[in-house]
Amino acid sequence: MQTEILDAGSISSFDETVDVLVVGLGVAGASATLSAVESGAKTLVVERAGGGGGTSAMSGGVIYLGGGTALQKACGFEDSPEEMFKYLRASVGLGQDEAKLEAYCNGTVEHFDWLVANGVPYKNTFYYGQSGEPPTDDGLVWSGSENVAPFRDIAKPAPRGHVAAVPGAAGHKVMSSLCQAVANSGAAQAFNTICSALVQERDGTITGVRLETFGKSRFVRARGGIILTTGGFVLNDAMLDAYRPEARRCQMRVAADGDDGSGIRLGMAAGAGTRHLDKVSVSLPVTQPWDLKRGLLVNAKGQRFINEDAYYGRLGDAALLRQDGHCWLIVDDAIFVKPEYGFEVCAVGETPAELGQELGLPAGALESTIELFNRHAVLGADPLFGKREPYLQPLLEAPFAAIDCNVESARYAVFTLGGLATDVEGRILDPEGRPMRGLYGAGRSTSGLAVGGYSSGLSLGDGSFFGRRAGKAAASARL
Amino acid sequence: MQTEILDAGSISSFDETVDVLVVGLGVAGASATLSAVESGAKTLVVERAGGGGGTSAMSGGVIYLGGGTALQKACGFEDSPEEMFKYLRASVGLGQDEAKLEAYCNGTVEHFDWLVANGVPYKNTFYYGQSGEPPTDDGLVWSGSENVAPFRDIAKPAPRGHVAAVPGAAGHKVMSSLCQAVANSGAAQAFNTICSALVQERDGTITGVRLETFGKSRFVRARGGIILTTGGFVLNDAMLDAYRPEARRCQMRVAADGDDGSGIRLGMAAGAGTRHLDKVSVSLPVTQPWDLKRGLLVNAKGQRFINEDAYYGRLGDAALLRQDGHCWLIVDDAIFVKPEYGFEVCAVGETPAELGQELGLPAGALESTIELFNRHAVLGADPLFGKREPYLQPLLEAPFAAIDCNVESARYAVFTLGGLATDVEGRILDPEGRPMRGLYGAGRSTSGLAVGGYSSGLSLGDGSFFGRRAGKAAASARL
Repeated sequence: MQTEILDAGSISSFDETVDVLVVGLGVAGASATLSAVESGAKTLVVERAGGGGGTSAMSGGVIYLGGGTALQKACGFEDSPEEMFKYLRASVGLGQDEAKLEAYCNGTVEHFDWLVANGVPYKNTFYYGQSGEPPTDDGLVWSGSENVAPFRDIAKPAPRGHVAAVPGAAGHKVMSSLCQAVANSGAAQAFNTICSALVQERDGTITGVRLETFGKSRFVRARGGIILTTGGFVLNDAMLDAYRPEARRCQMRVAADGDDGSGIRLGMAAGAGTRHLDKVSVSLPVTQPWDLKRGLLVNAKGQRFINEDAYYGRLGDAALLRQDGHCWLIVDDAIFVKPEYGFEVCAVGETPAELGQELGLPAGALESTIELFNRHAVLGADPLFGKREPYLQPLLEAPFAAIDCNVESARYAVFTLGGLATDVEGRILDPEGRPMRGLYGAGRSTSGLAVGGYSSGLSLGDGSFFGRRAGKAAASARL
Repeated sequence: MQTEILDAGSISSFDETVDVLVVGLGVAGASATLSAVESGAKTLVVERAGGGGGTSAMSGGVIYLGGGTALQKACGFEDSPEEMFKYLRASVGLGQDEAKLEAYCNGTVEHFDWLVANGVPYKNTFYYGQSGEPPTDDGLVWSGSENVAPFRDIAKPAPRGHVAAVPGAAGHKVMSSLCQAVANSGAAQAFNTICSALVQERDGTITGVRLETFGKSRFVRARGGIILTTGGFVLNDAMLDAYRPEARRCQMRVAADGDDGSGIRLGMAAGAGTRHLDKVSVSLPVTQPWDLKRGLLVNAKGQRFINEDAYYGRLGDAALLRQDGHCWLIVDDAIFVKPEYGFEVCAVGETPAELGQELGLPAGALESTIELFNRHAVLGADPLFGKREPYLQPLLEAPFAAIDCNVESARYAVFTLGGLATDVEGRILDPEGRPMRGLYGAGRSTSGLAVGGYSSGLSLGDGSFFGRRAGKAAASARL
C-alpha cells in the first residue's frame, strides 16, 4: 500500500468531520478509541481488515503489567513499580525512553483494572510451565527474564505476564473483548478501510485523512487529531532492507496482513522523526519444555553465548543478531526431551568430539566448551553466563545430540519494535523532538518501551497504555 | 542547531537565486559543487565553518577506489570492477544498495582520474605497513579486509586505499586540493553560514533555503536543487540515543564540529526516507603494529570472536556491537610489541591461568581458548576464524599479557554511516522510494556504500563519487 501527503489547500471539502480519527484497530487503536470516547470526543476508528483485532489478536495475548496488580496480588506475588522499573531499565536495551518507562511502571496497576473494566477476563491463577503462553487459561506467567542472570540480581523478580482467561494463545480473547467495548462505546467504526493519505496544512498541522473503502475515496477531517496505530513493518521487505535486513531471514514474521509500515511511512512523509527502526523482537523458543534450558546453546564456533535459561525473546535476539542465526542446542541423553515448536535433532554423537565432528566444528572446540561448563556446573555455578539452578547439569551421558537452531531451518519468530518518535502523551515528534500538531501514535507504529531486550507482553502493554494516552491527548486538542 | 521547514507561501521574496545550492563543503560538497559547475550551473556552496574541509579534512584521507586505477597499475596490482564488486558485496553488510555498489565499482577508475584532474596529488608507490594511513607519503595501501578470511576466498584481493601524497593523515591534502578547485571553479562560496531551514512548496518541492551568517538571515532560491552534504550525526547525542546509543560509549567521535545531523533532520522534516541510521563505523586500532595480529582478541568470557587479522574497522564493530565493548588482546612474550594509539597492557601472568585470574575470568576459560588456538596454530590453521599466516603463532612464552580493549578505557573511534535515502543519481527519496523534487544528497548525511562492514576510504569514496552525481542531477533539473 502506497501512501502520500496531500496539501490541505487541494481538498475542496471534507466528507465528514470528527474529533478524533484512529487508524488501525489493534490493541493500541482499540485503547485509543475507548479513551477518546471516554474524553467525550466524537471518534471514528478505521481498520483495513474486515474486522478489528490486527496482529494483537494473533498474539499470545500476554500483557506485561506489574507493580502489584490485582492479579499479581491474587496469585500471591509481591511487586512494586520500583522493582518493575529496575527490571525494565536493565533489560529493554540502550536508548530507552526513561519517561515512558516511568509512566508505565507507575501506571499499570490502574491499567490492568481498566482492561478488566473494559471486559478482558482474567483468572486469578499462576502457571509455571514451559511457555510464556500457558496452554491453560491461567492468568499470570513469567514472560521475561526477571528471574535469571543478570536481572534477578538487579531487581526483585515477579511474574508480570497477564494472560486473558482462555486456553492457549489469548490475543484473540483480549481483542474480542476490547473490540466489543469499542462497538459498545459509541465510536464509529469503518472496516475494509485504508488510510492512504494524510492531509497537511501549510503550517504542518495534520487535519485530516483520505480513506479508501473498496476503491472509493472519502476525506475526513479530524478536529482533535489523527492517531496512527497501524502496527509495525515486518511484512515490508523494502523497509526491512533499509532498517533491519536480518529480519528477512526469519521463517515466521509475527504479523497480521496490515503490518506493512503504512502508518510509519505516512508519519515520516509528513515530517515525523523516528526511533530505533532497526530494533526487532526475535523469539527462538527452543528451550521448551523448560528442562531443555539445561542444554548448551553454542554458535558456529562451538562457543556458548548466552545463559540458556534466558527468556526465548532474548535467545532469538542473541542468536540472530550476534551469531548470524547459526547455533545449536547441545544436550546429552539425560537432558534430552522432545522439543516443542518443531525443533529437531540434526546430529548425534557418542562423545562430544564425535558430535562436534558431525556438526563440522573444529577439533576440540565443542569438547572444550562442554568441559568448561561441566567443570563449573558440578560446583553449582556458571561463571561465564550465570545460568542458575535447576538448569545446571553437567553433560555426561551418551549419546550427545544437537538440536538445530539455524535460522534457515528452525523457527525464528520476528516482529519490529521501532517506529515513529512519540512522547509520553502519544504525540508524534518531529526530528527536533517537537510535537507535531494533529498527529498522534501508539503501538508498533511507534517506538515504545522495548528497544532491544524483549519481554513478552511489552507490545500489547505499551500499545494499550500509550494508546489510551494518545486518545486522551487527541480528544483534548480538539478545537 | 535546530532546523525547520518553511512554507514557500510565507516567503515574500528571495534575496538571491542560483541553480544549485550545496550545503556543506566536505568531500561530498566539494565534489557536488565542482560537478554542478562542470554542468554549467550557477552554484553556491555554503559551509558552517570558517572554511572548507569538514570531517573529510580531519580524516586519514584514504579513498577506496579500484577496478584497475592508474595508481593500482603503477604499483603493479591487478584489479577489476568485478573483483571489487565481489569484495564489497560480501563485506559491506546486509541491506546494501546493489545499484550504488555496481555504479561505484564500474566508475572509480574514472573517478580517480577526476580527483587527480582536480588537483589531488598521488605518489605511485605502495606502502605495506602497520596502518591504513601510512606515515609516509606513499599512495596505495590495504585499507580493508580484502586479504583476510573470509574475503580472500570470495574475491581476488587488491589494495584499494588511495592516499594523497603527504606524510601521515592525508585528509587535509585531499580537501585543500578540492577546495582550491572549488575556489577556482567559479562557484560562489559562503562560509560561517548555516542552512537552518528548507523552503517547501505546497506540492512538496524544495525550492530554497534560509541561510544564517553571524545571526543574519537570508533566503536563497535554487532553480535546480538543494544538495545536502552536511555529514553524519555522531556529535548529536539525542540522535545517537534514537538510532545507535552504543556509539556514545566511544572515546573518540570522528567528526568536525558540524556533524550534528542537521542535514538529516532537515531532510526528514521535509518528508524524506532514511536508511540504516543505526549503522556506524567503529575502529579499534589495537593490532598496530600489524605483528600484534598474532595476539588473540578475547571477550569478557575469555572467548575469541573474530580473526584478529581483520581490518581494524571490523574489529571495532565486532567488539562494540557484539561484545558490548569488553575485550582484550592477549599476547605472549614472543608476540608482544608496544601498541600504537595509546593501547596499554592491563594485566600480566606467568601462565594463561594466572592471566585469566588477573582479568577476573572464570577458571579454565582463557586456558581453553589459548589451548584450542595453539593446537591448530602449530598446524598452520585457525579453523574457528580463519586467521592466516604470518599471524598464526602459538602463544607459549611467558609472561602472558592482556592489552586493554575495553570501551571505557581504550580508543574506539566511531562515526555514523546511515542517513537520508538516495538513489544512484543522488536524489533524496521519500518513504515510498519516490524521488523528492528539488532535494539531493551525498556523503554521510545519506546512506552510502557501507551499511555495516567497513573498509577505510568508503566514506570519502562514496561521498565524492555520488556527490558528483548529485551535482550533475541537480544542475540538469534546473528550470
